[in-house]
Amino acid sequence: MSEVAGRMSIQVGAASLQKASGGFGVLLGGVPGVPPAKVVILGGGVSGTHAAEMAVGLRADVTVVDRSVDRLRELSSMFGSSLRTEYSTTATIERLVRDADLVIGAVLVAGAAAPKLVTRAMVKTMKRGAVLVDISIDQGGCFETSHPTTHAEPTFLVDGVIHYCVANMPGAVPRTSALALTNATLPYVRALADLGWQAAFRRDPGLAAGLNVHAGQITHEVVAKALGLSAHPLR
Amino acid sequence: MSEVAGRMSIQVGAASLQKASGGFGVLLGGVPGVPPAKVVILGGGVSGTHAAEMAVGLRADVTVVDRSVDRLRELSSMFGSSLRTEYSTTATIERLVRDADLVIGAVLVAGAAAPKLVTRAMVKTMKRGAVLVDISIDQGGCFETSHPTTHAEPTFLVDGVIHYCVANMPGAVPRTSALALTNATLPYVRALADLGWQAAFRRDPGLAAGLNVHAGQITHEVVAKALGLSAHPLR
Amino acid sequence: MSEVAGRMSIQVGAASLQKASGGFGVLLGGVPGVPPAKVVILGGGVSGTHAAEMAVGLRADVTVVDRSVDRLRELSSMFGSSLRTEYSTTATIERLVRDADLVIGAVLVAGAAAPKLVTRAMVKTMKRGAVLVDISIDQGGCFETSHPTTHAEPTFLVDGVIHYCVANMPGAVPRTSALALTNATLPYVRALADLGWQAAFRRDPGLAAGLNVHAGQITHEVVAKALGLSAHPLR
Amino acid sequence: MSEVAGRMSIQVGAASLQKASGGFGVLLGGVPGVPPAKVVILGGGVSGTHAAEMAVGLRADVTVVDRSVDRLRELSSMFGSSLRTEYSTTATIERLVRDADLVIGAVLVAGAAAPKLVTRAMVKTMKRGAVLVDISIDQGGCFETSHPTTHAEPTFLVDGVIHYCVANMPGAVPRTSALALTNATLPYVRALADLGWQAAFRRDPGLAAGLNVHAGQITHEVVAKALGLSAHPLR
Amino acid sequence: MSEVAGRMSIQVGAASLQKASGGFGVLLGGVPGVPPAKVVILGGGVSGTHAAEMAVGLRADVTVVDRSVDRLRELSSMFGSSLRTEYSTTATIERLVRDADLVIGAVLVAGAAAPKLVTRAMVKTMKRGAVLVDISIDQGGCFETSHPTTHAEPTFLVDGVIHYCVANMPGAVPRTSALALTNATLPYVRALADLGWQAAFRRDPGLAAGLNVHAGQITHEVVAKALGLSAHPLR
Amino acid sequence: MSEVAGRMSIQVGAASLQKASGGFGVLLGGVPGVPPAKVVILGGGVSGTHAAEMAVGLRADVTVVDRSVDRLRELSSMFGSSLRTEYSTTATIERLVRDADLVIGAVLVAGAAAPKLVTRAMVKTMKRGAVLVDISIDQGGCFETSHPTTHAEPTFLVDGVIHYCVANMPGAVPRTSALALTNATLPYVRALADLGWQAAFRRDPGLAAGLNVHAGQITHEVVAKALGLSAHPLR
Repeated sequence: MSEVAGRMSIQVGAASLQKASGGFGVLLGGVPGVPPAKVVILGGGVSGTHAAEMAVGLRADVTVVDRSVDRLRELSSMFGSSLRTEYSTTATIERLVRDADLVIGAVLVAGAAAPKLVTRAMVKTMKRGAVLVDISIDQGGCFETSHPTTHAEPTFLVDGVIHYCVANMPGAVPRTSALALTNATLPYVRALADLGWQAAFRRDPGLAAGLNVHAGQITHEVVAKALGLSAHPLR
Repeated sequence: MSEVAGRMSIQVGAASLQKASGGFGVLLGGVPGVPPAKVVILGGGVSGTHAAEMAVGLRADVTVVDRSVDRLRELSSMFGSSLRTEYSTTATIERLVRDADLVIGAVLVAGAAAPKLVTRAMVKTMKRGAVLVDISIDQGGCFETSHPTTHAEPTFLVDGVIHYCVANMPGAVPRTSALALTNATLPYVRALADLGWQAAFRRDPGLAAGLNVHAGQITHEVVAKALGLSAHPLR
Repeated sequence: MSEVAGRMSIQVGAASLQKASGGFGVLLGGVPGVPPAKVVILGGGVSGTHAAEMAVGLRADVTVVDRSVDRLRELSSMFGSSLRTEYSTTATIERLVRDADLVIGAVLVAGAAAPKLVTRAMVKTMKRGAVLVDISIDQGGCFETSHPTTHAEPTFLVDGVIHYCVANMPGAVPRTSALALTNATLPYVRALADLGWQAAFRRDPGLAAGLNVHAGQITHEVVAKALGLSAHPLR
Repeated sequence: MSEVAGRMSIQVGAASLQKASGGFGVLLGGVPGVPPAKVVILGGGVSGTHAAEMAVGLRADVTVVDRSVDRLRELSSMFGSSLRTEYSTTATIERLVRDADLVIGAVLVAGAAAPKLVTRAMVKTMKRGAVLVDISIDQGGCFETSHPTTHAEPTFLVDGVIHYCVANMPGAVPRTSALALTNATLPYVRALADLGWQAAFRRDPGLAAGLNVHAGQITHEVVAKALGLSAHPLR
Repeated sequence: MSEVAGRMSIQVGAASLQKASGGFGVLLGGVPGVPPAKVVILGGGVSGTHAAEMAVGLRADVTVVDRSVDRLRELSSMFGSSLRTEYSTTATIERLVRDADLVIGAVLVAGAAAPKLVTRAMVKTMKRGAVLVDISIDQGGCFETSHPTTHAEPTFLVDGVIHYCVANMPGAVPRTSALALTNATLPYVRALADLGWQAAFRRDPGLAAGLNVHAGQITHEVVAKALGLSAHPLR
Repeated sequence: MSEVAGRMSIQVGAASLQKASGGFGVLLGGVPGVPPAKVVILGGGVSGTHAAEMAVGLRADVTVVDRSVDRLRELSSMFGSSLRTEYSTTATIERLVRDADLVIGAVLVAGAAAPKLVTRAMVKTMKRGAVLVDISIDQGGCFETSHPTTHAEPTFLVDGVIHYCVANMPGAVPRTSALALTNATLPYVRALADLGWQAAFRRDPGLAAGLNVHAGQITHEVVAKALGLSAHPLR
């Protein structure tokens, strides 16, 4: 689902930048002789990488920010001279966000709340009509000004900056999402059906690690911690 | 402006394919393991080429149709194995349109009405929720079922197929469009300002050829013909 | 050797599609204005990936099928919009094989018999003159209709479909294959020569894992299982 | 047809390099760690460019030779660092042919006999098992040692070098060729059918220039000259 | 020679940016996580395009400025998302030069003095240690602060900005330059040798147009105008 | 730092090949119609890969040599047909070095002395004016003829071959290097500051492995071995 959300984020961002949507009125890729829009992607994981692929594909001026130099190296090798990578510090994010036309928040930490990388103060420095898309909204969002929205009313304004924070982005493209989900879960479903859950868990610790609740107790440590409860991992 | 319209056509097409817009609910580029949407671009001129660049950039499955083999050769050399080219015949268009998720009408004939390449009968064979974007709408449109719409209400349905036929597409991204227009016209404006219109016309037949009306009479032959009037070219 | 076989599979497939070889008479990459041939590659491992590189290089319309979504993700990132990836299910293979001009069987399971992914019934649905190349033939083949052939008589017909099932494909390009083999084995040869086999095995479990028979007994578990015998691993 | 022949030349060249065909036994693209075969393409026109696209696609080590620096510039810009271009002189051709695994003769001069760029003496310096493919054979061939062959017996040996000189190469892929031919000729057929030949010739000098014989006399100057006759152009 | 100069300009620019040369101390392409240097190329003709190829190849952040939208379109199609194009106005140049690490002046007007696109005032706004390379220096230079230098002492400082203005740049790579020159002139030399100059001039107006002086009089109009003399074209 | 050194090696190599630096006088990428320079990169690790990216970017004719086939496979997949990979043997290095214009020594073995891959005898076979750049010089160098130099006097000649052996290459681009170093070390600095060194070492064995000396004793085994001392690893 991270892939679907990552790819969609650029196309909803492009649509939100149109004048009729209240946006700044720029075309993501510009045209020859007219500079492209500046896209900043916070997080170079699965979502961020798929967002980058689409933004580069639309010929935008793209920068990916991540706090792992190793990941930036991989991205640099994948994309060559068609995107820039910068190491994530508060100063870097401040500078990039101020000039951006479109910022994609793609910071996902497994099971935990997303860090608030873009503060309310930073949003104030942005251009009127710029666009923020928060893919991390299901985990609380990575912009301080984010709150969840729906496909019916996907955006709201803070300081003139458009926020797109739909909680279930992949729901907009159900045919693609359903297939992607089936592909990703089919091996697990087969294992559960063939072996029963206990044997399947024993054989595949990755599957076992996906268990959040068992017999009325939270089994997943990160989830428990986020809720202020104690975990009871399955043995 | 053809460049802006061509590039925009893919992003509005992608947005229209989302479920909330009434579309088929597919992501243009699919995701790994899930096939991409099929995009058919009618016309490989400036608009069509820019549409192709964006569609390929979003990882769609793209076919461009044109009736010039020379142009298909150029496109094939530009895009390599990332798009297919097919020679334009009625049979080819019927086959491609039937399976398409998104069809871009990019057939522009200078000053003349666009040919109706996609008939009402062909539209009937399409999938419910598929999308047509008619860039040629300013010249009457190249789908038989097209009629002009506005940015306020950009789409309508015929046989369950979404039609996007906004008459002034570049108006959605005014900052990009205004700059593009300035770049394109600045040399002419300079010539007119420096030399006066008569001298400027004498020096640049291309500029002179842009004159449509002079002293109450139509000077441009194609325009005159389209209106059923006779032309009075400037001498 | 998997690399050599993978790369060769496309060039023998292209040759078999020529009319003089009894094939369908299509050029793998088509030409501008004429659609390319459809190539389906079953398996995205080393062989399949090298086959895909060559097929994309010849401008064919390529789909790779694999049952690991992770592997499809890597392929998608490597090839961008120039190939499609689909998750492996029986329904997917049926649909793709029916329309294919060339199918490459590149499903290798270490030491075990290859699964029969394409059944006799699926072959019946294919076009007369289409081509199957079975790289997995050394492990029994992944088409139900395969049986081993030689470079002297490399192909046979089943239901009008050309089968290329040469058991030792790399033998056709001995200069390339000999060098590739030397490169791959030189480190092991050096270790065996320098240390003697016992010490070399202790230092490198990967080398030790390559032992199939020792002192008259089968030491490799997968091989033993495939033959219905019990394994006696070296300690 | 030049496109079909150009693309096919690489795939028949690759097949001829296989041991079973008597070739040198190398894989065109090598594999990682093993150098690729050296391909030299004489002529950077339509045929040569399509041959280059395929050879680069198969990962060979490709050099294109042409006597137009402008054309080399275009090729360099199209292919970047994946092929080399050299200006055509006898010394250059001697040096390149001596080291080549595969030489493609793609020198076509409209209506005239092809120049003999590779002499018998140069062929003597080549490796046993190297391959020459002469696309220019329909115009006499550009290797001194060429003579036309057929799809039934496509190759012969001179000094241990394999010559592939099939006179009608596109005949091997009739489905692709027939479509390509239809696409290329359809506009002329339509013009002839709609207007009659006299009017069609008047409107399109390019079409008129294709006339070789009329009322028992040769009308095409180059053809007449090649045959030692005098031309009677249509007025 | 424009090609050699264009390609060399980036490598001398990169060397001048090193600390030991007095430069700003940045690596043209940065490294993953560290932004690349900003390169601005004034002029998108032959020199500028070759400079752009090298700068993009070194992973710099490249913008090309030209006053022909058509040329910008071609560059955009060649380079995709790996460079930006901007239409040339004084305001654009001011903005870009102020932020640049390396500016390449590649504005060549056949036979005429190059326009002074970068004024002394603009140089004052640049960073200390930034670098200007003036390929147009043989025609007077396109920076107001330029004056010709030699390979022995190639650079000088104005307002802390390094100027590289070697009058005969290709002289630094004589093997490459001599071959390039031979390739470019060989066809003319052959024509002059075979036909004599009068006949060669009649057959090839392009060659004739290269004549600057004949029988003690200037024959080339642009040259004459630049020197304030009147031209006596050959008839 | 390996990245900075790898990228810089190509730009200093290109500068050293210029005539004024005493070099062979060739442009790394040649120009269309003139062959590019031959660049051989010994070692396909981080430095070597970044060197390869720059050399390919400048359109040189690049071969990377490594003794890991797996690494060559990855490089082949990253670079496609724009570079060649060869397996490292003495015979291969001899052959490649003899013909090379520029050789980059990028063989780094963690903490140990670099192996002398290019012997004095091989240097004797090279062209006068060819260039060697030894990135491994900080670890003793991988050319037998290397000795450390400084940015003030970066090169020396052996048998007419230019040696560039600056011990601290990244020092030439301090702005880029300082940022790269900060990015790479920031996570460790944070850990040390937050946790104290004992706790930080316990949590991150990679950080602990970086300790060379503690309480007057060498703790790093490879360093100790290189100095002929015994190691006292921290427990």
